[in-house]
Amino acid sequence: MKFKNLFTVLIMAGTMMTSCGESKENCAQTANTTEAVIENIMTRTSIRQFTSQPIPKDTLVDIVKAGMAAPSAVNVQPWSFIIINEPEVLKKLEEVHPYSNLKTATAAIVVCGLKDKAENPDVRPYWVQDCSAATENILLAAHAYGIGAVWCGVYPSEDRVNAVKQVLEIPENVVPLNIITMGFPAQNPEPKDKFNPDNIHYQKW
Amino acid sequence: MKFKNLFTVLIMAGTMMTSCGESKENCAQTANTTEAVIENIMTRTSIRQFTSQPIPKDTLVDIVKAGMAAPSAVNVQPWSFIIINEPEVLKKLEEVHPYSNLKTATAAIVVCGLKDKAENPDVRPYWVQDCSAATENILLAAHAYGIGAVWCGVYPSEDRVNAVKQVLEIPENVVPLNIITMGFPAQNPEPKDKFNPDNIHYQKW
Repeated sequence: MKFKNLFTVLIMAGTMMTSCGESKENCAQTANTTEAVIENIMTRTSIRQFTSQPIPKDTLVDIVKAGMAAPSAVNVQPWSFIIINEPEVLKKLEEVHPYSNLKTATAAIVVCGLKDKAENPDVRPYWVQDCSAATENILLAAHAYGIGAVWCGVYPSEDRVNAVKQVLEIPENVVPLNIITMGFPAQNPEPKDKFNPDNIHYQKW
Repeated sequence: MKFKNLFTVLIMAGTMMTSCGESKENCAQTANTTEAVIENIMTRTSIRQFTSQPIPKDTLVDIVKAGMAAPSAVNVQPWSFIIINEPEVLKKLEEVHPYSNLKTATAAIVVCGLKDKAENPDVRPYWVQDCSAATENILLAAHAYGIGAVWCGVYPSEDRVNAVKQVLEIPENVVPLNIITMGFPAQNPEPKDKFNPDNIHYQKW
């Protein structure tokens, strides 16, 4: 269960308020949203096997909305998103990308970078960072909806960029950064514990 | 208020269970964690003015842990994090970075890319995307803790990279990607609504 510690979290919640009357209707409790957000970040992991249950289109759009909420350098928003949920398109993409994990996927989101959108040429290179932040939002939002996903790199591999552009008819000045392969999970891998205190420095390196 | 719709969310929650007795102790309710996560993503916005209240060190470490939970290409984890909360170091950084927003900040996290960590040279360029995903996790975790933050770009500006490396004594093969300027918010800007349906394509561009 993704939020297996939810009850513990709710019980421990320092900021929680309880207001219970004698009927269910009068029972309200603010959740420990901090813990829910952190738990969602810490338990997200790559999912590569999916059930055949389709993802509702509205949910795919909501997940892309979360992507668009990412910050971007000088608020350029140098991105565009291709939602794919037709099996024949997913199959074509799978054929051109060796590590796309699309075999059982029911959907994919291709995050595209608008590399020339910023007027200031010094700002343009930030499209990679901006689109990566949008991608992470998408992965976290998908996980919150109980949807599995895996980030499959496209850019900067020239072969993969060209192949994906051809399949999806992506114009010249737009770069597919990745394929986010998606579906309802058919596997339940333990999230990796990647905490390494040696990776933290204080005040300087 | 960050979670102003929380009560609405709790009331609407389809997955919610209510179990109320006559005492507060018997009242338990699963929160709609999905909504909490989405709300956190949608309400995060850049904060550039901070109060003097310091951020507890444990909270800074927890926020960095959220950064380390990001996915990375081939799980290389090509990152390291410098936590800064000494005023004199923040001041030195501010002096070398024109848009660091550090004037009132009480802390900063510098996300560093280990650009040569991947053995496979084809994987090495992904450090930018991986560290950007870690950065977004840090921004979202900070927001969940009620801490304001703003992503201030360093890489790929050669001048900024060199200046930050010098102040923080960062070694040759490590690249500071950004300065995440932080503190408790002294401003409450409305989050931007960046949803643009024209940025969504279906099946192909």
